Amino acid sequence: MAYLYGSAEAAALSEQTYNALTAYVRGVIERARDRRGRLPTERRAGTLPRWPQSAVLVPGATAASAETSPCSALPPAVVLDMDETAVLNLGYEYDEARTGAAYDVKRWDRWERTGADKVVAVPGAVAAFRQLRALGVTMVINSNRSADNAAAAAKALRTAGLGEFRHGDTLYLKGDVDGRSGKDGRRLEIAKHYCVLALVGDQLGDFADLFNPPGPAPALGRRALAGVGPIQARWGQGWFVLPNPVYGTGLGTGWDETFPQDKRWGDAPAEGAK
Amino acid sequence: MAYLYGSAEAAALSEQTYNALTAYVRGVIERARDRRGRLPTERRAGTLPRWPQSAVLVPGATAASAETSPCSALPPAVVLDMDETAVLNLGYEYDEARTGAAYDVKRWDRWERTGADKVVAVPGAVAAFRQLRALGVTMVINSNRSADNAAAAAKALRTAGLGEFRHGDTLYLKGDVDGRSGKDGRRLEIAKHYCVLALVGDQLGDFADLFNPPGPAPALGRRALAGVGPIQARWGQGWFVLPNPVYGTGLGTGWDETFPQDKRWGDAPAEGAK
Repeated sequence: MAYLYGSAEAAALSEQTYNALTAYVRGVIERARDRRGRLPTERRAGTLPRWPQSAVLVPGATAASAETSPCSALPPAVVLDMDETAVLNLGYEYDEARTGAAYDVKRWDRWERTGADKVVAVPGAVAAFRQLRALGVTMVINSNRSADNAAAAAKALRTAGLGEFRHGDTLYLKGDVDGRSGKDGRRLEIAKHYCVLALVGDQLGDFADLFNPPGPAPALGRRALAGVGPIQARWGQGWFVLPNPVYGTGLGTGWDETFPQDKRWGDAPAEGAK
Repeated sequence: MAYLYGSAEAAALSEQTYNALTAYVRGVIERARDRRGRLPTERRAGTLPRWPQSAVLVPGATAASAETSPCSALPPAVVLDMDETAVLNLGYEYDEARTGAAYDVKRWDRWERTGADKVVAVPGAVAAFRQLRALGVTMVINSNRSADNAAAAAKALRTAGLGEFRHGDTLYLKGDVDGRSGKDGRRLEIAKHYCVLALVGDQLGDFADLFNPPGPAPALGRRALAGVGPIQARWGQGWFVLPNPVYGTGLGTGWDETFPQDKRWGDAPAEGAK
């Protein structure tokens, strides 16, 4: 928490990610203009849409293929996770740090409902949301906060300075579409309405459900999966990661996955020299 | 440690930073070519060098000015910190996690001398070092490992797959130049020999000493300093940050800097409903 919420280093890392997102989307939009400067959404039906592929994987995509869905001439959007991606949950984490209590689903629900004024925007997010909207991009949140708490989620985003979000249009929550925690269903639904130029998150599930398969962990290991060719190339090119060492699926690793056997060192001070 | 060394999320974040570094430097080089495709280093003396400003601040620069030093037609370089920037110190951190021992300068010195085969490259670093060298860029390490252990530091970098480093040319260590922990002196020395296109690190001291002034902390707060205009714009544009929640100056914040008073929340379960 000291790192993520208190350090200049984590703030710099978040600014860096939002700078990269803005530069990437600006580049995509500039390249999508035709010779008269019109964007795909501004051309008449029948003229060739020139958005690149979206950042959303097609259903059934694997890490090795990582095929993305095509974009027709839909309006451009960026799809972001909410917690520790758009906002920092300072209030909730303060309570958890102060009490030492473990995560509790009912407490988190009370937080969703009553904590809207106790969050702040992730460093860099306010400027990036403003700049991207000025480019004509719609910002869409895809969060696992509960659809029952949609109004409170929208209020938290507004209070953090990130603007207005409308449930079912620019705010997708758990309970929407297929009711699942996995976000692929909601991503595909969003992709029917928008050309999703970029995905932003702090958990790999914010990019594709293939990182969190049901049953045993991927044979290769989840960490190695992030580095295989087609996936590796997406980091910073359509997929943008923010730091979160406080909670999440990535913290579930044990000693063996964190410290490979052949990389373990034991200190051996010389006799009498310690 | 589970996050930095074990998670797919931290791996993705590191890959993202190295992808951004490579794309940025490639862009700078392409824009520096003249109409005949020659780089500043390839043009005869007297023709205009076209490297942009370097990524190194001029002596006396402040966060508000953040003025960088000009580049003459020197060969291009990227300057990187070593620990948790180029390599992950798995062996040392395993020992610290296993024993629960606090940091100890003598144990770290033993690690520097004997741990060369117990590090791995940061995800994305091996490919980025190779690609950048293929572009004609020299990779220079500026580390606070001891100059007395230069051979072991070079061996650790080589073992991690990052290539060859020569002390005093491509490997600068604590004890070199002015003997200080602050890296500005070494950065300026490196900038006499190379046009430093980018700086890479996990601590703000890897970019400029102004983040760690002697005496009291900056009035604005170190975290806020990372977000002021001229500094904010550098993240991902010449300055590239890697995640490190395990150690460092950034972890020195207390409750008040981590959780502002007006963002504290207290859980209040309804009577009998907990």
